[in-house]
Amino acid sequence: MLEKFRFLTAGESHGKCLTAIIEGLPSGLEIDVDFINSELKRRQQGYGRGGRMQIETDTVEITSGVRFGKTIGSPLTLVIYNKDYENWQKIMSVNPEDETDEKSFTKYRPGHADYAGSVKYNHKDLRNILERSSARKTAIETAVGAVAKLFLKHYGISCRSNILQIGAGLSEEDFHSEIDKAKEAGDTLGGKFEVIFENLPVGLGSYVHWDRAIDGKIAQAVMSIPAVKSVSFGNGQHGYKIPGSKFHDEMFLENGKIIRKTNNAGGVEGGMTNGEDLVVKAVMKPIPTLRTPLNTVDSSNMTETTAHFERSDTCAVEACAVVAEARIACVIANEIMLVNPGDYI
Amino acid sequence: MLEKFRFLTAGESHGKCLTAIIEGLPSGLEIDVDFINSELKRRQQGYGRGGRMQIETDTVEITSGVRFGKTIGSPLTLVIYNKDYENWQKIMSVNPEDETDEKSFTKYRPGHADYAGSVKYNHKDLRNILERSSARKTAIETAVGAVAKLFLKHYGISCRSNILQIGAGLSEEDFHSEIDKAKEAGDTLGGKFEVIFENLPVGLGSYVHWDRAIDGKIAQAVMSIPAVKSVSFGNGQHGYKIPGSKFHDEMFLENGKIIRKTNNAGGVEGGMTNGEDLVVKAVMKPIPTLRTPLNTVDSSNMTETTAHFERSDTCAVEACAVVAEARIACVIANEIMLVNPGDYI
Amino acid sequence: MLEKFRFLTAGESHGKCLTAIIEGLPSGLEIDVDFINSELKRRQQGYGRGGRMQIETDTVEITSGVRFGKTIGSPLTLVIYNKDYENWQKIMSVNPEDETDEKSFTKYRPGHADYAGSVKYNHKDLRNILERSSARKTAIETAVGAVAKLFLKHYGISCRSNILQIGAGLSEEDFHSEIDKAKEAGDTLGGKFEVIFENLPVGLGSYVHWDRAIDGKIAQAVMSIPAVKSVSFGNGQHGYKIPGSKFHDEMFLENGKIIRKTNNAGGVEGGMTNGEDLVVKAVMKPIPTLRTPLNTVDSSNMTETTAHFERSDTCAVEACAVVAEARIACVIANEIMLVNPGDYI
Amino acid sequence: MLEKFRFLTAGESHGKCLTAIIEGLPSGLEIDVDFINSELKRRQQGYGRGGRMQIETDTVEITSGVRFGKTIGSPLTLVIYNKDYENWQKIMSVNPEDETDEKSFTKYRPGHADYAGSVKYNHKDLRNILERSSARKTAIETAVGAVAKLFLKHYGISCRSNILQIGAGLSEEDFHSEIDKAKEAGDTLGGKFEVIFENLPVGLGSYVHWDRAIDGKIAQAVMSIPAVKSVSFGNGQHGYKIPGSKFHDEMFLENGKIIRKTNNAGGVEGGMTNGEDLVVKAVMKPIPTLRTPLNTVDSSNMTETTAHFERSDTCAVEACAVVAEARIACVIANEIMLVNPGDYI
Repeated sequence: MLEKFRFLTAGESHGKCLTAIIEGLPSGLEIDVDFINSELKRRQQGYGRGGRMQIETDTVEITSGVRFGKTIGSPLTLVIYNKDYENWQKIMSVNPEDETDEKSFTKYRPGHADYAGSVKYNHKDLRNILERSSARKTAIETAVGAVAKLFLKHYGISCRSNILQIGAGLSEEDFHSEIDKAKEAGDTLGGKFEVIFENLPVGLGSYVHWDRAIDGKIAQAVMSIPAVKSVSFGNGQHGYKIPGSKFHDEMFLENGKIIRKTNNAGGVEGGMTNGEDLVVKAVMKPIPTLRTPLNTVDSSNMTETTAHFERSDTCAVEACAVVAEARIACVIANEIMLVNPGDYI
Repeated sequence: MLEKFRFLTAGESHGKCLTAIIEGLPSGLEIDVDFINSELKRRQQGYGRGGRMQIETDTVEITSGVRFGKTIGSPLTLVIYNKDYENWQKIMSVNPEDETDEKSFTKYRPGHADYAGSVKYNHKDLRNILERSSARKTAIETAVGAVAKLFLKHYGISCRSNILQIGAGLSEEDFHSEIDKAKEAGDTLGGKFEVIFENLPVGLGSYVHWDRAIDGKIAQAVMSIPAVKSVSFGNGQHGYKIPGSKFHDEMFLENGKIIRKTNNAGGVEGGMTNGEDLVVKAVMKPIPTLRTPLNTVDSSNMTETTAHFERSDTCAVEACAVVAEARIACVIANEIMLVNPGDYI
Repeated sequence: MLEKFRFLTAGESHGKCLTAIIEGLPSGLEIDVDFINSELKRRQQGYGRGGRMQIETDTVEITSGVRFGKTIGSPLTLVIYNKDYENWQKIMSVNPEDETDEKSFTKYRPGHADYAGSVKYNHKDLRNILERSSARKTAIETAVGAVAKLFLKHYGISCRSNILQIGAGLSEEDFHSEIDKAKEAGDTLGGKFEVIFENLPVGLGSYVHWDRAIDGKIAQAVMSIPAVKSVSFGNGQHGYKIPGSKFHDEMFLENGKIIRKTNNAGGVEGGMTNGEDLVVKAVMKPIPTLRTPLNTVDSSNMTETTAHFERSDTCAVEACAVVAEARIACVIANEIMLVNPGDYI
Repeated sequence: MLEKFRFLTAGESHGKCLTAIIEGLPSGLEIDVDFINSELKRRQQGYGRGGRMQIETDTVEITSGVRFGKTIGSPLTLVIYNKDYENWQKIMSVNPEDETDEKSFTKYRPGHADYAGSVKYNHKDLRNILERSSARKTAIETAVGAVAKLFLKHYGISCRSNILQIGAGLSEEDFHSEIDKAKEAGDTLGGKFEVIFENLPVGLGSYVHWDRAIDGKIAQAVMSIPAVKSVSFGNGQHGYKIPGSKFHDEMFLENGKIIRKTNNAGGVEGGMTNGEDLVVKAVMKPIPTLRTPLNTVDSSNMTETTAHFERSDTCAVEACAVVAEARIACVIANEIMLVNPGDYI
């Protein structure tokens, strides 16, 4: 839980809706619902997405905390309705009388939360895990991040992301052909991407205590995206082979202002933003749900088998980058609030 | 702040002592002071360390929370005295009458907290930043981590770390020659290392909310080590180029038990431990204090100059790995407490 | 924010709905929706309530976290729709185009959040404060508390509350006549009540650190109910005039078990439950919205005037006691989870 | 744990020292050690204190976070050495070889943490509980609070406390005679006191979420003082018998500024400071260690007996009020930081 920009999210993949409550925003902040929806759209796009993205054009409904287009200081509630809920109403019912084993499954999907989740929460029907561990929940996180971005916009802070590599592909064209090949093979692909934030103030985060370092907080926010397995700042992943004389970003003067000619640090020194662009790089692993399924174990009878398959994408790196943007925006919004709060804007 | 294994650390590099308070441990846990000291020693060793490590053989003093060798439930206080404090007593004095500019400096050291720290905390004398942003504070973190390891030992959990690469070096012999070359050139080196935890229970962490994912919490703990710029799980840093069919760790049966033949996930699926070894890889950047100093700016008169030099090491990757072990041990101890607490052992 | 039983609530008094997200419950807990609704009904009843209580028979909808009557480990979303929202849709609209000053007001209501809230959040229209500071939000807190009670029921813990005094009244009959008199006079009344929890385990909370004391956590939860101004444990409010020899609850043996003959401590010694009934007493101040309005200031033109009046109750002590029960249930559920967690039931 | 003014305390009653680490203070704050010591002295004084107070004139040592009289942004370490530690060195030893049952005891003291603590932490020797549950730990809390007061002083905020009633006594003279009588009888006394903070800004705390209400946070801080059993704001304890028309503090204009003629609310409306004096009233129960001991049970052999006696005071209400001041100062310092932070002063 972030200290000031507090939020909880909830919702199952095929439940009625996803919900988030955000607590801590100042009053007077303009909330542009169209912007939030455009972020939700960005998350749903990208080459390599499967069928569900066509079904669900996510839109957010705000049911509290905003009046006449502005925050009033009270908590915001964001809701995204799941479009195909009507087909799942019985299967996902709250009601004990509706209990059914339709759509239940017992074959662990390697790479997913199924196995550890079933041990942890004592579930026989792995759907009880799939429904919340699904990447579907990143939709509402994207909406929360969009609100954070609106807050950051007020401080002149903007962000973007770029795909860096997918399989062997290094350009937009290569990405598509790599994805096409994987799709044909019933396989999936991950990818490497970067997220860049511009115009951050100097001194967000701190070196004085380990849990105040902004790079640590960002690393948590990005690494906890289910599919992300690696997070770096700037040129950090190569820091083991570049000597100190080349790695560190020397400081010069230009028109009386301090400038840097390099940004290997990715905008963070000593756990604080240093005024350069914040550059976070991350690797998304390939989607673990494969049309050509993986070897696994059936938990119902402890026999070897192949994994449960449920409609999925071939590659979702673009979506993952959008989610990473959203998560980092939340962390930075929180940091801004820690040093420059004000109860209204 | 972790939820259950709570701790704060304090202390300047040349102050009287480093201190930590740990709150939340059960009573009845055996505290082996020799083990803590052996961990402190591990942190001080490693090829490439400079002179200070000879001065300071750190040892811990426990001043609360332990009686007759066991915790009693109350908070632990750990203290490590700085051996050369007597030479710094005046310079680091609490007393306003002792104010002096001896040992003060104003030339920002690129790669360090100096610049952002001076803006954030409004310091003219950059020593006020150096003293706390220094890696010296990782000594007390190592002691805290050693206590966490003693707790984990009770649950049969152990850990170790390995250096993977330094410069171009890939073996122990190469590491030494790389470091020798850098030292001669007045340069510094970072390195890549891995930390491995064995025998973790299945299901630490969770997928149900972003801030409960154990990989996120570990990433925060490791990335917030001042010199770490990249953190990965298992084979995560290569996840962008390995297709799903090869990346995910398939499940098989052996004598009726679930086994895996690979561990690309590094022991974490869906934000939870999955029973395989936890494998965390990290990159430490080269030490930013160079004998052949970097270009920078003097904050006192805003002119270009070269950076302040203060006694330093050529390479401290082994120490960094020990600190990463300690930090991860704290996170895991906290997770164990979250699911399997008990107020006494 | 409680450490384990985490929740956020949201919603305005005349907005579309009130919402809560609860994060941290184990899986497998039976969620009896009828019980939650019966708690909501208890909150709406009581002698002295005004007209709104007739309009709104609150019922909860659960949109996540529960499947076939049991929790699945993921966060719960609770929603209570505001019945008269249709009449307020324009006035409470999220949409900037709907901006109106209908139902706006500028005359501070003494005893309410209006004045401090308008300074804090920079609101001219005090409705922006009234809507969230209203006691309406305790409806969703009651629903959250009902979930906590279901969790506690699993551990055999039950609770109840009693009205102790209203005005000069000391019995049920007197309460009614006191309220009738106040209503006739256009006045309002507070009251004193107690909440009792039975069958708590020994040792919830702790003395080892100030912020772990269970009496402190309960005091926070009850005192932060808007109308509560005084909280005591057991016979605590008289502790200044009873000597130690009489106040402390001596211990005896009965059939080999420790018993007490008194409970002046209200079940808490050293910040921990001691196995006796937990007895929390609180005083609710009179409702600050009076039909015969109080002297105040109009913030729009800084003139003296009388306060804004909005439909209100004469006395709501019974509701307040139900809310206090709910809040304390949340604290105790959290404490149970801290010592006896388990990810499933 | 407070969000911004974070601190942990540690230390046993007869251990080497009490320690606190405070994290979160801005840099540049003047730390007047004499003021901290004068607060420690205030805590040790008061009519009715026993022998230990003569032994221990507490003084604080600061070992980190302050340089040349000012904070530098890094965590502060405060240490108070226990003066009679030399006599307890073996009894309180960290060392397993020193294990002894000298000074151990097994007779529960009613009103203390002994019973619940022994169940919770599985201790046979109740000294393991006494040592931390003792009021001795409030010395270091007083030092932490003194630092908070120095921070508040920077914002023009001051505080004081008054004893309101001890036994039947209502004046300074009566207090002394009540205490004398109790002492003679081998009995103890509690008392009622108030703490007043002046010049608080309007709008600390909030109504928007239950855990942001400042009255709740203050109630936690005061109720968790071991001996406090009742906490009220302003005239809150009488709120059940005063009608709304009399209870609420009406607003008037005087020279164009809003004024109140009463302060029944004790300076808090809607969970926020309202610009009036903050008035917190609390009841301290009588000290549970009596020279004429209470009936109890011996845990070693489960027989009825009378309680263990350890040197104690007759009445410590003045000390308790000083501790309450300190605790409330911490809460308010945290609230100031939440709305008006700044990393330096």
